[in-house]
Amino acid sequence: MNLVTFSADGKQHWGVTAAGGVLALSPEFPQWNTLRNVIEAGAILRVLKAGQGRPASHPEGSFTYDIPIPDPEKIICVGVNFPDRNAEYKDGQDAPPFMSLFPRFARSFTGHGQPLIRPPESPQLDYEGEIAVIIGKAGRRIPEVEALSHIAALTLCNEGTIRDWVRHAKFNVTQGKNWDRSGSIGPSAVPFTDPAQITDIALETRVNGELRQQDRTGRMLFPVARQIAYISTFTTLVPGDIIVTGTPTGAGARFDPPVWLKPGDTVEVSAEGIGTLRNGVADE
Amino acid sequence: MNLVTFSADGKQHWGVTAAGGVLALSPEFPQWNTLRNVIEAGAILRVLKAGQGRPASHPEGSFTYDIPIPDPEKIICVGVNFPDRNAEYKDGQDAPPFMSLFPRFARSFTGHGQPLIRPPESPQLDYEGEIAVIIGKAGRRIPEVEALSHIAALTLCNEGTIRDWVRHAKFNVTQGKNWDRSGSIGPSAVPFTDPAQITDIALETRVNGELRQQDRTGRMLFPVARQIAYISTFTTLVPGDIIVTGTPTGAGARFDPPVWLKPGDTVEVSAEGIGTLRNGVADE
Repeated sequence: MNLVTFSADGKQHWGVTAAGGVLALSPEFPQWNTLRNVIEAGAILRVLKAGQGRPASHPEGSFTYDIPIPDPEKIICVGVNFPDRNAEYKDGQDAPPFMSLFPRFARSFTGHGQPLIRPPESPQLDYEGEIAVIIGKAGRRIPEVEALSHIAALTLCNEGTIRDWVRHAKFNVTQGKNWDRSGSIGPSAVPFTDPAQITDIALETRVNGELRQQDRTGRMLFPVARQIAYISTFTTLVPGDIIVTGTPTGAGARFDPPVWLKPGDTVEVSAEGIGTLRNGVADE
Repeated sequence: MNLVTFSADGKQHWGVTAAGGVLALSPEFPQWNTLRNVIEAGAILRVLKAGQGRPASHPEGSFTYDIPIPDPEKIICVGVNFPDRNAEYKDGQDAPPFMSLFPRFARSFTGHGQPLIRPPESPQLDYEGEIAVIIGKAGRRIPEVEALSHIAALTLCNEGTIRDWVRHAKFNVTQGKNWDRSGSIGPSAVPFTDPAQITDIALETRVNGELRQQDRTGRMLFPVARQIAYISTFTTLVPGDIIVTGTPTGAGARFDPPVWLKPGDTVEVSAEGIGTLRNGVADE
């Protein structure tokens, strides 16, 4: 049973996955507006228990998935974090000693099953399949050995990018990484209870069924525990914060010539134990 | 009369400046939790009117200033935006055709009068005096000619930076720009009613009274109207969003040898019509 945020009849709910759909639990817990509040309250187990054995309130097709945490304080993405990714930049620089980080705004993501939006300003919409961790316990300067205990849940991210806008300026990828609804997060938040859920799992991205990215988290240059330790050195991580942990080689920009996403395409990001995040593509 | 957010007796209030202090108005408008909500409601004039001619509820010394908008959806900073700033990078690159952008989290700022925090991890705390605009009206793809009408208020920012962490990674300045309470915003939000308030005003930064940065907004490489137009191309700007518009040449990193901030220093950022943002420096 996983945690979900979804919309139906113009209203947003949170709840859990259930046979054939989802079960809204937000009406039973009005004290928590969003899953972020549930996590802040340390109430994931209580919520899962409340949903146990119950049927779906909303069958598949009667709702749309939203980003699991619609209102995170911050979303931080880790760049250049799998073997061969640094070489892809062809800038003659050695692999950096520290991880590259960039924030994304929540509005740059849409939910599972919703189309990624290709804006009229650029045809260069690209995918990046990633695993995202959702912070459960606040912390600053979290030691690496304790870092995984600060994770509340795992989810998937298609860190969709408008490639030519990434290199618009002197440095920083901000504008190429923050187009409204150019990426996606979901489908659900998988409660995190065991380090084995993240330390060495398979991560794959398919476009129209064709395998484009494939690697394992065990090969990350900066493993998730180190990410949490490093990021929390400078900023306090709080419940609901999302860290998007890096993408394997094989995004569309790396083909010669590059292959961009276009309306009609389907992108699937999947990881062992976390599920599959599936999105179409639509022109704005 | 300007808008302020402040704390007293462990509680946060919003209100307006008044003779000898500030006047809390949040108790009279419980429907608006923060100034962001006031701006969303289009209620700045109503609030100013409510405060007119009334004495301070909290005299200077009985409260501490907070960031005027404590809960913005996003804070976007513009880099390399004054003459000579590109040359300071000494990387042989021409001035970029588009502006450099990077987000900061609200928790990387403190209010007027509070110390900037120098962390034990680095002695390289540096100042960057800037003008910040607070968005009043939502918009996407805002035309440059209409852009200034989307501003609700102006304020000041010391875009405090941990210099060596800016260059930790392959690209992106995220980690050097987001240390908790390493920068400041304030003291107040000055209602924006006339383009002349921003188009060509003087901006200065002083450290211990010594003038370090001095320029005019009329010399920006990317004027504020163009910033709003460009940023809103990719992301929807919403009420309460903050754009930090760029710093003149003369930060401590540009001295030879560099001059970093240290406990005991006082940094003052001032701009015509917006006031003076003053902060000390303290070790964490």
